[in-house]
Amino acid sequence: MSLVVVGSMAFDAIETPFGKSDKIIGGAATYIAWSASNFTQPIKQVSVVGGDFPKDELQMLEARGVVVDGVEIKENEKSFFWSGRYHLDMNTRDTLETQLNVLGTFNPVVPDSYQDCEILMLGNLSPVVQNTVIDQMKNKPKLVVLDTMNFWMETAMPELENVLKKVDVLLVNDSEARELSGQFSLVKAAKVIMGMGPKYLIIKKGEHGALLFNDDNVFFAPALPLEEVFDPTGAGDTFAGGFVGHIAKTKDISFENMKTAIIVGSAMASFSVEKFGTQRLKEISKADIDARIQQFVQLVNFDIELV
Amino acid sequence: MSLVVVGSMAFDAIETPFGKSDKIIGGAATYIAWSASNFTQPIKQVSVVGGDFPKDELQMLEARGVVVDGVEIKENEKSFFWSGRYHLDMNTRDTLETQLNVLGTFNPVVPDSYQDCEILMLGNLSPVVQNTVIDQMKNKPKLVVLDTMNFWMETAMPELENVLKKVDVLLVNDSEARELSGQFSLVKAAKVIMGMGPKYLIIKKGEHGALLFNDDNVFFAPALPLEEVFDPTGAGDTFAGGFVGHIAKTKDISFENMKTAIIVGSAMASFSVEKFGTQRLKEISKADIDARIQQFVQLVNFDIELV
Repeated sequence: MSLVVVGSMAFDAIETPFGKSDKIIGGAATYIAWSASNFTQPIKQVSVVGGDFPKDELQMLEARGVVVDGVEIKENEKSFFWSGRYHLDMNTRDTLETQLNVLGTFNPVVPDSYQDCEILMLGNLSPVVQNTVIDQMKNKPKLVVLDTMNFWMETAMPELENVLKKVDVLLVNDSEARELSGQFSLVKAAKVIMGMGPKYLIIKKGEHGALLFNDDNVFFAPALPLEEVFDPTGAGDTFAGGFVGHIAKTKDISFENMKTAIIVGSAMASFSVEKFGTQRLKEISKADIDARIQQFVQLVNFDIELV
Repeated sequence: MSLVVVGSMAFDAIETPFGKSDKIIGGAATYIAWSASNFTQPIKQVSVVGGDFPKDELQMLEARGVVVDGVEIKENEKSFFWSGRYHLDMNTRDTLETQLNVLGTFNPVVPDSYQDCEILMLGNLSPVVQNTVIDQMKNKPKLVVLDTMNFWMETAMPELENVLKKVDVLLVNDSEARELSGQFSLVKAAKVIMGMGPKYLIIKKGEHGALLFNDDNVFFAPALPLEEVFDPTGAGDTFAGGFVGHIAKTKDISFENMKTAIIVGSAMASFSVEKFGTQRLKEISKADIDARIQQFVQLVNFDIELV
């Protein structure tokens, strides 16, 4: 199935208890494309960067089947920049600096060549921008997947509620699910959120795995227990990339197949956290990915015979 | 396999955000016996209670195949009492009051009729008392399972280290695993702890499930996503009871069967939290348990085909 990915392509500077990165390549759409391109090609990218964004990064993506016709380059402006510091638990972080730059005026234009879109993956962005992209699609995609964050719940809730009505799958983390729904129990939160539009809800719990809800069904995917989480930046986007990548490859938007897609996403995220930025995603082979997915099978596989 | 359970039988008074219990029946060995007796009988209980402990509670356990010859009744003394208040997250709690009473001088005597013990389940108690019981066993049990808590790590670490050398399976929660090992990563913590004696380590993560480690193998069991956790008291003991109960029933101490035993334990724990104290455990039928285990199968079951 044809896949369009919308989101930031940017610079990050990251501090963790284990080290500090230079200004490195980041952005939701970057991670999503690196991850998804292991499973499906082409990936049609919609984003905006400044003249400072390395051309060879775009070329590396093109070499992996990522179409960048929808990536606007504002030569005289600077790319989005985020800098943050992770706490010891690697689950919480402080933002040290945010420079919106080109993202502040981002008004995406979907190229005509993207109009065959069957899966639309909307990475974390202003819900107004996300809505603009949905509205530019002349035919409704078979699956609209949206990621968002607490910042938009606090600053643009009506706009977020508006876009959620047009979404099939929503991705949030556990604290965002609680904030969005006003419910502490994730089961109750899921019911409230599915009442807001999305038929499917994925709640990411970091090292505690992820839950997929649909009607009264629930599926749980574990995170791989790791010796070390080196850099969690982009893990959620890498997860989303594996999820949509697997669905695009298998051409199956059923709940059953979404379960497998979540395992694939979890496997991809487990690579992402092993090194700074997208570095690990650039190294891994199909054999690495298959072996990692087998680890997930082993991790949760058990036999039971009810007597 | 014959099962001996050692632990407290006591009174609790519990406050949660949802309500407040009277002084109700609790204690690690009580929960373990109620849970395990769904899978195996007899269960040979070692504990101590005061004259205030209701005789009909002991009779109810006997009716479920629990042998109470090893439960000492000190008629002129009072049973152990614990009172606590749970926080809104239901994962953390404050102790309001602890009265050791009969537990302060507990010096368990293992009856001769318990010497056929194949599985020894040591509920949370002073490691000195746990050690005493192991030393009274004339033949080494096939499986020694031990539960402990942070209190003993802080007040009796040398004694705990001593008893851990004699243990096959250790049960702790995630914060206890970190405290015991001095490692934040649970994978690293597991390696350190398995170096202290136990060949198998179960790390309970409450609503985030449980991990089983053995050598380089790891298995993950989810917790059932629940609309409401009414009272978490005894959930860990109920889990332990399901775990040893399943192993005793199936007579199989392999890693493969321990995986299934952890799913059974998780299913039992998911009942325990639905009402105050042991109430829910007293109500459920074999059909309820089978249905709940099936929910776990559905929760983690997925198909993957690597192409």
